[in-house]
Amino acid sequence: RINGERLWASLMELAQIGATPKGGVCRLTLTDLDKQGRDLVTRWAREAGMSVTIDKIGNGFMRRAGRNNSLPPIMTGSHIDTQPTGGKFDGNYGVLAGIEVVRTLNDHGIETEAPIEVAFWTNEEGSRFVPVMMGSGVFAKAFTLEHAYAATDTEGKSVKGELERIGYIGDQEPGDHPIGAYFETHIEQGPVLEDNAKTIGVVSGVLGIRWYDCTVTGMEAHAGPTPMALRKDALQVAAQLMQEVVACAHRHPPHGRGTVGMVHVHPNSRNVIPGQVKFSIDLRNATDADCDSMDQDIRAVAAKLSANSGLPIQIELVSNYPAQVFHPDCVDAVGRAAAKLGYSHMPAVSGAGHDAVYMARLAPAGMVFIPCKDGISHNEIEDAQPEHITAGCNVLLHAMLERAGA
Amino acid sequence: RINGERLWASLMELAQIGATPKGGVCRLTLTDLDKQGRDLVTRWAREAGMSVTIDKIGNGFMRRAGRNNSLPPIMTGSHIDTQPTGGKFDGNYGVLAGIEVVRTLNDHGIETEAPIEVAFWTNEEGSRFVPVMMGSGVFAKAFTLEHAYAATDTEGKSVKGELERIGYIGDQEPGDHPIGAYFETHIEQGPVLEDNAKTIGVVSGVLGIRWYDCTVTGMEAHAGPTPMALRKDALQVAAQLMQEVVACAHRHPPHGRGTVGMVHVHPNSRNVIPGQVKFSIDLRNATDADCDSMDQDIRAVAAKLSANSGLPIQIELVSNYPAQVFHPDCVDAVGRAAAKLGYSHMPAVSGAGHDAVYMARLAPAGMVFIPCKDGISHNEIEDAQPEHITAGCNVLLHAMLERAGA
Ligand SMILES: NC(=O)NCCC(=O)O
Ligand SMILES: NC(=O)NCCC(=O)O
Repeated sequence: RINGERLWASLMELAQIGATPKGGVCRLTLTDLDKQGRDLVTRWAREAGMSVTIDKIGNGFMRRAGRNNSLPPIMTGSHIDTQPTGGKFDGNYGVLAGIEVVRTLNDHGIETEAPIEVAFWTNEEGSRFVPVMMGSGVFAKAFTLEHAYAATDTEGKSVKGELERIGYIGDQEPGDHPIGAYFETHIEQGPVLEDNAKTIGVVSGVLGIRWYDCTVTGMEAHAGPTPMALRKDALQVAAQLMQEVVACAHRHPPHGRGTVGMVHVHPNSRNVIPGQVKFSIDLRNATDADCDSMDQDIRAVAAKLSANSGLPIQIELVSNYPAQVFHPDCVDAVGRAAAKLGYSHMPAVSGAGHDAVYMARLAPAGMVFIPCKDGISHNEIEDAQPEHITAGCNVLLHAMLERAGA
Repeated sequence: RINGERLWASLMELAQIGATPKGGVCRLTLTDLDKQGRDLVTRWAREAGMSVTIDKIGNGFMRRAGRNNSLPPIMTGSHIDTQPTGGKFDGNYGVLAGIEVVRTLNDHGIETEAPIEVAFWTNEEGSRFVPVMMGSGVFAKAFTLEHAYAATDTEGKSVKGELERIGYIGDQEPGDHPIGAYFETHIEQGPVLEDNAKTIGVVSGVLGIRWYDCTVTGMEAHAGPTPMALRKDALQVAAQLMQEVVACAHRHPPHGRGTVGMVHVHPNSRNVIPGQVKFSIDLRNATDADCDSMDQDIRAVAAKLSANSGLPIQIELVSNYPAQVFHPDCVDAVGRAAAKLGYSHMPAVSGAGHDAVYMARLAPAGMVFIPCKDGISHNEIEDAQPEHITAGCNVLLHAMLERAGA
């Protein structure tokens, strides 16, 4: 069993770097604070006897040798960058749980057959640079290193320049080494485990995500003198379509999700009928076929709304993350570990994207979820219970040991 | 009959000050450009033999003496400030039509019994400083001079400071002189005259306007891991209420208007379920009783939506401009002038607020509408036909002559 108090203390110490007054963390990727976080985590790794290498996109690999170092490592990891109003646990838990696994093996003098590696992936959050899950995406060759390097923040600073500035641009070619298996522990970021009073979520896969930009075009006109019958009010048509996004999700149970999170009204003036409304659509489902079906559904509804209103509606797919089913061996390893340790557990799907999605393209992969308070994350009030933190790390330890061979 | 070409030439000359590349005008109130516009208009007035006085809120009064100068003047006017993306006609037409009336009287050596006054009112548009219709509002004592002086723009500059800076803070006490009658010519800013192929709108009154700020409060959560059934999506409830604003207007024909023009979503992120949505509601109708009825209607609908969704909805009245019925003598004078001159005409209501609304509290008042292209105003493409410009000014001339006594 791992040392829960030590893990908790490390989490709280890392959370000091970029701590916000409301109890959260703001440690955006590739900032000075991110450098401080990386320095602390790699120091802990070296103190635990691990070697540290950095690849060209700034991913860190902290390695504990095995008996047979020609075997591909059993890997775990996550990210230590946060949202601007992020919490202490999202990502950070997955990395520090990996270090705690190694510390525990050291405590008990346990050698593994295969080496163990703990990774921190650059820019998982995507709030400073797009795309999200950048480091693991480059590692898995989902897009090129050059594409990632060229991404800029709102001030025009590039990923490459910022990696150089903080000294975390390594020599290693991303994706150059094979991996035996990948596990990631993470807070659920949703309310299902808490609602079901379970300690461990045995994650079977990650929903496919489609992001769209939608534009409804009407005609700006003065809110006073324009009779109701002569209006081309873009917001009224957009409001119907926004509700259809949710209806579409309800038409695709049990895993369909539909969200309109971002809205821009033009010209956004109290006494002007909106001439144009742009808004985002986020559709998710458990399989790519289900995502396709939701895509067709929302496009058909939009076409009908457009025909009825006479207002053009444009729907553009801007990102597409395929659904990912995790490897049954890894999923079962997580389930067996939870059962053996006596933790209440249930099958879970991840509604959010994670670095594990990309790693699953390279190796058998699985995830361990623990509850977070009220299902809230990406928020300074994000919270998790120490006993759940401990439980998730114990499950990780046993699942990794099963794969690595003790 | 007035000189249409001269009036058109003056309109085009004034439109050079703050001309935009798209053919519109950006001449915000109390800017350097507004000063240039004021200087030009008052120069024209002096050249036409008028005296010019400025009051403490910067309203300008350009006076042509009558035979009996103890009689209160017959007044016309409007404003020369524009929206940021404004047109050449909104307001400017009403002021220059007044000057053209005087020029025409001069051409024909016509003396009137009562004096004639042409006013330009400060900050009708309200886009730089609130409240709208500021100069006429202070003149009519709808609010105090001090209240108007204290208004600031987004850079923190005050009305008083800007009046001083451009040299248009006068000695005259606003509202110190009685008025015999007030007429205002204006583009309709709506499509009704054009749709009915009429040249002149005989305006019977101005709709009451109620402005509200509405807030729907839900709970921010991650768009991925949060199941549909467990969401408190503020935007979904807001979208229903936005449609109810329009439905409410349809339940109050023929003059009910309902518009949601401004929307702010928090945190406005693609993969976050909106935790709070704030939006504006603009309700209008022909009588205050009708406005009351719409107010009760929308509050009842909001209460029902709130009860059904469990999400708090707050509706706050932020401005209330009562409906204004114009004086039958002035309305009839406009109708008679249009008939006498042989212009096609129809009764009209103004859906937009105008300086005439405040003047109607002080004296018999009326308005003359002419069509504008596609009913569009508050837009750089705002346009009006020279023959309509001429016709409206001829109607103004004859209505004023009837009241002033030739
Ligand atoms: N875990 C996480 O927040 N990923 C970001 C991408 C998404 O799922 O919206
Ligand atoms: N004429 C005009 O645009 N007035 C502004 C107030 C309103 O919205 O009616």
